[in-house]
Amino acid sequence: MDVITLSQIQAVFSPEAALQSIKEGFIAYSKQKVDVPPVGYLGFKEPPGDCHIKYGYINESPYFVIKVATGFFKNHLVNLPTSDGLMLVMSSQTGQPLALLQDEGWLTDTRTAIAGALAVIQLAPKNIEQIGFIGCGIQARHQLRWLSYATSCKKVSVWSPSLHNSEKFAEEMAEFGFQVIPSTEPEQTVSESQLIVTTTPSRQPIINSAWVQPGTHITAVGADAEGKQELETSLVVAADILVVDSKDQCCDHGETAHAFQAGQIESEKIVELGVILDNPSAIKRSSTAISICDLTGVAVQDIAIATTVYESIKKR
Amino acid sequence: MDVITLSQIQAVFSPEAALQSIKEGFIAYSKQKVDVPPVGYLGFKEPPGDCHIKYGYINESPYFVIKVATGFFKNHLVNLPTSDGLMLVMSSQTGQPLALLQDEGWLTDTRTAIAGALAVIQLAPKNIEQIGFIGCGIQARHQLRWLSYATSCKKVSVWSPSLHNSEKFAEEMAEFGFQVIPSTEPEQTVSESQLIVTTTPSRQPIINSAWVQPGTHITAVGADAEGKQELETSLVVAADILVVDSKDQCCDHGETAHAFQAGQIESEKIVELGVILDNPSAIKRSSTAISICDLTGVAVQDIAIATTVYESIKKR
Repeated sequence: MDVITLSQIQAVFSPEAALQSIKEGFIAYSKQKVDVPPVGYLGFKEPPGDCHIKYGYINESPYFVIKVATGFFKNHLVNLPTSDGLMLVMSSQTGQPLALLQDEGWLTDTRTAIAGALAVIQLAPKNIEQIGFIGCGIQARHQLRWLSYATSCKKVSVWSPSLHNSEKFAEEMAEFGFQVIPSTEPEQTVSESQLIVTTTPSRQPIINSAWVQPGTHITAVGADAEGKQELETSLVVAADILVVDSKDQCCDHGETAHAFQAGQIESEKIVELGVILDNPSAIKRSSTAISICDLTGVAVQDIAIATTVYESIKKR
Repeated sequence: MDVITLSQIQAVFSPEAALQSIKEGFIAYSKQKVDVPPVGYLGFKEPPGDCHIKYGYINESPYFVIKVATGFFKNHLVNLPTSDGLMLVMSSQTGQPLALLQDEGWLTDTRTAIAGALAVIQLAPKNIEQIGFIGCGIQARHQLRWLSYATSCKKVSVWSPSLHNSEKFAEEMAEFGFQVIPSTEPEQTVSESQLIVTTTPSRQPIINSAWVQPGTHITAVGADAEGKQELETSLVVAADILVVDSKDQCCDHGETAHAFQAGQIESEKIVELGVILDNPSAIKRSSTAISICDLTGVAVQDIAIATTVYESIKKR
């Protein structure tokens, strides 16, 4: 069994291979050519934290993957990052453990951002003059860098509850060629951007339906558990195109859940990302359409990215 | 994160510490002072195999444990053992992975045998002149060696479907001081032994109720999944004392399940091992009583043994 550290993972990591494998993973997921059981969960009270175990395989793959991800929200008190994690790559031919990827959560952050990039490649309007970010944490950094695979636009407006944090984000992202302007009003960021990415842990809507201009695409990444919400429910209802990573999950605890559970949208309106990645013509956007991609995170992304990393390591 | 190989695990392994910690684990389990979610499962068709993920923690422990165990039944065709596995020890204070125990299934075999020893310590009749083994595979070897912690008896009768395998078992166990006599009839093994351990994967009863003499204890280890059965149902019904590692599991898929699901025994008759380990006087056996301990394997054993190994490694 190979034990691979984060720096070793990063050394062999191929963005193009990861994009392709996660794309294929979403397609397999939407064709139900995967075995992905319900997520395992453990909760902790003192200190508060949780652990998710996501696992499964893509049919006919020689591998299966088990991902362990933890979140302990008081870890800053002991100078540790909030999130940690690892992935196990196992043989689906013999059951043997093949590799431990000690990615410390980096592969999870990366696969989440890759889903965002894949959504934008399929859904973004033709002309993007400005990208808007709501939230400026670690996932926002990943999302923005991966957007380079989807758009050449480098002009960014960012809003977050902390102007200080937004300024830090702007400074850091400048190193990667982005001109990021912190905003003091989310309305300004939203109404002036044609491509918007939301990455906050908010439990109440931040984006007002009225702010969103015709021809805008929104990728909503923050709502990954019950009770979270970044978009006003009426915005999800009014969207011309509503794409989700997983119909089951998004109708249960994504942005889509609020509208779906209130009976304000029909299941038929919702299209899985894997469907449009497999057949891009499944959706046609007019120049005035508003599109939303609701991402809750599915295990097939972990399976795909871990497999790709393992295969890169084997090749070396 | 420490990566610990099987030989490193065996080098620090303390049988006494493991017995004590698994005993405490069973007690905590029966007092519901644990968080042990349902077992995660993946099945594979070609080649046939499966993977179980058992995980959880004992309340107030600084650790939680995730165990991955695989069984691929055609592995002998590629010169690999059928079973493989590993355990992850994680911090329940920060979520950090602390250690990977690459035990290759050895800790699972060991914790299963320790449950057998703990049962015999509590339940065995006073005078054991002969131990009877039904089945002579790897688990039988572990069970017999661990019985040294429960009885001084060294005389053993063994029956298995293959006399050749029984002879091999006898030869190997002689090295550990046991006088093992292979038998060609299970009836002989059963009727002449006061302590019986069954470790077969049988799907139909092997032990006939009429063979079992008054004053006998039976530890049944084989039935760990639906459809498996080693003891005639009427034997479970007639037993004076019926102990199980987990009421939930044993009534679902242990030896107990056949009698329980047919409505032939009441839930009140069934006592959890953790209850009698906590309070040995909860059960009093007469000299003619027949007792059965039905073991299906619970995650708390994995949690306890992994924790103990990790603590031994930290001390070094």
